[in-house]
Amino acid sequence: MSGPKFLSGDSSAINEFLDKFDTFLIDCDGVLWSGDHVFDGIPETIQLLQNKGKRTVFVTNNSTKSRKEYHAKLSSKGIPCQVEDIFGSSYSAAIYISRILKLQAPRNKVFVLGEAGIEAELESEGIPYIGGTDPAYRKLGMVPEDFSGIADGSSLDPDVGVVLAGLDFHVNYYKLAHAHGYLRGNHVQGDEVQKRDGKAVFLATNLDSTLPMYHSVFPGAGSASIVALSNMTGEQPLALGKPSQAMMDAVEGKFHLDRARTCMIGDRLNTDIQFGIEGHLGGTLAVLTGVNKKEDWEKADAVAVPAYYVNVLSDLRGPASN
Amino acid sequence: MSGPKFLSGDSSAINEFLDKFDTFLIDCDGVLWSGDHVFDGIPETIQLLQNKGKRTVFVTNNSTKSRKEYHAKLSSKGIPCQVEDIFGSSYSAAIYISRILKLQAPRNKVFVLGEAGIEAELESEGIPYIGGTDPAYRKLGMVPEDFSGIADGSSLDPDVGVVLAGLDFHVNYYKLAHAHGYLRGNHVQGDEVQKRDGKAVFLATNLDSTLPMYHSVFPGAGSASIVALSNMTGEQPLALGKPSQAMMDAVEGKFHLDRARTCMIGDRLNTDIQFGIEGHLGGTLAVLTGVNKKEDWEKADAVAVPAYYVNVLSDLRGPASN
Repeated sequence: MSGPKFLSGDSSAINEFLDKFDTFLIDCDGVLWSGDHVFDGIPETIQLLQNKGKRTVFVTNNSTKSRKEYHAKLSSKGIPCQVEDIFGSSYSAAIYISRILKLQAPRNKVFVLGEAGIEAELESEGIPYIGGTDPAYRKLGMVPEDFSGIADGSSLDPDVGVVLAGLDFHVNYYKLAHAHGYLRGNHVQGDEVQKRDGKAVFLATNLDSTLPMYHSVFPGAGSASIVALSNMTGEQPLALGKPSQAMMDAVEGKFHLDRARTCMIGDRLNTDIQFGIEGHLGGTLAVLTGVNKKEDWEKADAVAVPAYYVNVLSDLRGPASN
Repeated sequence: MSGPKFLSGDSSAINEFLDKFDTFLIDCDGVLWSGDHVFDGIPETIQLLQNKGKRTVFVTNNSTKSRKEYHAKLSSKGIPCQVEDIFGSSYSAAIYISRILKLQAPRNKVFVLGEAGIEAELESEGIPYIGGTDPAYRKLGMVPEDFSGIADGSSLDPDVGVVLAGLDFHVNYYKLAHAHGYLRGNHVQGDEVQKRDGKAVFLATNLDSTLPMYHSVFPGAGSASIVALSNMTGEQPLALGKPSQAMMDAVEGKFHLDRARTCMIGDRLNTDIQFGIEGHLGGTLAVLTGVNKKEDWEKADAVAVPAYYVNVLSDLRGPASN
């Protein structure tokens, strides 16, 4: 098997690559920026793609920001885009809950383990929720009443039908214990059968184990809360972010894209590149400014191998621009 | 294969059982009590064992209390015991650090993710530590300086050589990010090789996924923090609680016990019963007042099968006592 094609510095290979696609799905963290630091030449590269008539869609697993907030961040960094060009895992989860799960009232509330981005997207779909950034859940430690109220369900909301977990910088034992109580069905009054049938559905915005920031990595959504809940319940959540094909289906439905003429661009093999390959896109492009490096896909047990790679995304502008 | 022998209500079987052993290693949560509720007849049962000349040693994975605090709890519930008869996972971890790891100063500090029980046992062994119950780490959320200081190591302590994780009711993102930084070697100044070699050793008091309390279950040490760190680093900690044989070796060394005449009593197959079997003890006794039930060891893929079982520990007093 021949490896991925290296494009940096090769004008004719770059032109051939660009001609193959109409739409580029572009990951953000590790591709456009690391934390607040935007990589050199990113705004110009996105502009170049748009000038060539390509559609640029920003597909991110970061659930802490809503599409509006992402749009504000992209714009403030000079990256040309519209709110409608952004597709985040929080939005993906909100769409799944409202349009696929279609929970019936009153058991249609979502317990949120996450930040404001999730709340904004749930609101945009008219989905009721509790938890999230509510200061009542931002407490450290547990008092006996916290334990007893979760154990017998008296302090839980009987209307919760879903636990949605994403990256939560304010995660604590109190929130984990609540989420766990809903997943076990503690909030459902009745016999063991009712409790079992009343267990909340377990959803996750994404399972990323780490979050690249400040040229280092930090606990990702998958590590800081989701794997904890899975370990307690023995249950895996349905994840609505990359590489979940539930997200790809939603992206396709919204943008009416021709998968054969669409390319996924990202830095992570087990989210971005796997997402593109399993979604049968026309191509995948890896950049080396984020989590994974060349040696990661050269391993025999590599989780996914991209079709193309560049050192940095701005290499797509070609050697003449440097 | 014949299954475990059921002792409840069978005087001759109980007497035969008791005659086989000089020492009983007894788990606490789910055997003696659930949370603060002590099961009926427990003090009398322990007294009966002692009256028959048996040694009773309380072996617990719960790291939140020190041996002294455990002694106070047992005594307040009327259960006869000495401080020296208690062996907790925090004490086990402290002994391992001081007597096996023997870290050289100055890189001998422990970053604690846990409660006061761990701190007390580290102090009893003269081991320096940071983190734990220090209010400075009890904060929710992250500011940019938190991220940058952990990323470049400037806010980390260069003397940390161990991350010790146990059950922490005050776990938060800030603590997880610090622990992760130490496990990655962010605190070690120097090149990549120094950083790699300077990574903190990853220890855990125990890996219990859940904690039985108030007739329900709550996030255990394994779920609330340890699996999160493992998921980020790809590294498994050395666990010093049951079923780790590092704990069995320490128990044997301290009590000079004859393994063939020792029986482990507990409610969990994957900690207590496995601990006794892998430690080649003379016997294991399961009680049905905690996490596991009869059907759990009757499964084809049961993690461990006890040699004996009773409904409740006080059944060892025999049918005449009821």
